[in-house]
Amino acid sequence: MKNAVLLLSGGLDSATCGAIARQEGFTLYALTVDYGQRHHFELEAARRLARALAVREHRIVTVDLAQFGGSALTGEIDVPKDRAGHEIEAEIPVTYVPARNTVLLALALAYAETLGAADVFLGVNAVDYSGYPDCRPQFIEAFAGLANLATKAGVEGRAKYTIHAPLVQLTKAEIIRRGLALGVDYSLTHTCYDPDPTGKPCGRCDACTLRRKGFAEAGARDPLEG
Amino acid sequence: MKNAVLLLSGGLDSATCGAIARQEGFTLYALTVDYGQRHHFELEAARRLARALAVREHRIVTVDLAQFGGSALTGEIDVPKDRAGHEIEAEIPVTYVPARNTVLLALALAYAETLGAADVFLGVNAVDYSGYPDCRPQFIEAFAGLANLATKAGVEGRAKYTIHAPLVQLTKAEIIRRGLALGVDYSLTHTCYDPDPTGKPCGRCDACTLRRKGFAEAGARDPLEG
Repeated sequence: MKNAVLLLSGGLDSATCGAIARQEGFTLYALTVDYGQRHHFELEAARRLARALAVREHRIVTVDLAQFGGSALTGEIDVPKDRAGHEIEAEIPVTYVPARNTVLLALALAYAETLGAADVFLGVNAVDYSGYPDCRPQFIEAFAGLANLATKAGVEGRAKYTIHAPLVQLTKAEIIRRGLALGVDYSLTHTCYDPDPTGKPCGRCDACTLRRKGFAEAGARDPLEG
Repeated sequence: MKNAVLLLSGGLDSATCGAIARQEGFTLYALTVDYGQRHHFELEAARRLARALAVREHRIVTVDLAQFGGSALTGEIDVPKDRAGHEIEAEIPVTYVPARNTVLLALALAYAETLGAADVFLGVNAVDYSGYPDCRPQFIEAFAGLANLATKAGVEGRAKYTIHAPLVQLTKAEIIRRGLALGVDYSLTHTCYDPDPTGKPCGRCDACTLRRKGFAEAGARDPLEG
């Protein structure tokens, strides 16, 4: 059994990514980064998923990216609503968090190096990906190259880092079908950018729109829908 | 005047790096990362230096790398003492913090992108560099490449990121001479890995040894020495 760090946000993608990593035989060490999101329902979902995935350890690291501002996800800009799929894909949206995946992967690398793990799983997706630059395959490949230059384990040849992004070329519907086949319980996940105070999804932000479209195309029922 | 993010640790190198950035005409936004160092004298030095450098803004971001363990600088391993220069350079020491500079640069990139800045200054040094892999020029270059793939500003062509590491090929003595010529007040800096409870340097850790050697070779007096 090889060890791997799983970046676990609490969303549908990272839940599916974790199930794929388990199926591939990895022992999982989950890392959730609290970067100052608007709400904490994602963190609660991450805790539930860590238990469901039977991870060996779950670390939650707090880093206040919100203090830099610049994103609807960390509070100072309104979350856009009621946009169709083609609008969502047309530009990089205000829910982009500056350099988020670079920060997440840097922290995952620090964790992996101390564990002696050379594998990191990240549930990014470049098809229905909301236009984030740091979800693209060329970004993921560049980070793996950096990791081997950046670390004692890389330089001493004890680790050759691999950043696994098994969802990167899948549509949301394909991700959901794959996850359902692996037994992922999507009732444990949280997707909405702007839930009500009880955690109920708004149903109108880009994340809700892409999730609904994904379940519809997969011909499946979303357990979070009533 | 162009804006730049300065990674400011509170040490001799970042103080000198900041003075060089100012001389080059940048308006500075200082970023200090509290990553769970053993002591807080570095943070206090960073605050003093931020004032001395007349930075526009000084942000302190806390991220608990210490919870991952694996380094003498974050607490669980003893700091080595009384090693000669050639011993210090022979291997990557236990004071290495896993993936530290990757995490620091990722946070600097997040800050830079929200500021609309494309320049980041980092006082790393590959000559008297204590053998850290993430202080080497090839690491710095790889990170700049990553930054342009990782960000909205990079992808949209609004920013071409440059990671400035003006000390990377200088000896400690050359750094000190350069800083003294620019008027850096080294009494404001903190270098020691293992100070006493009042902040007084131990004089025996690798950082103290390299600092003393540097001042001696520069033919200058260290204001922190009695």
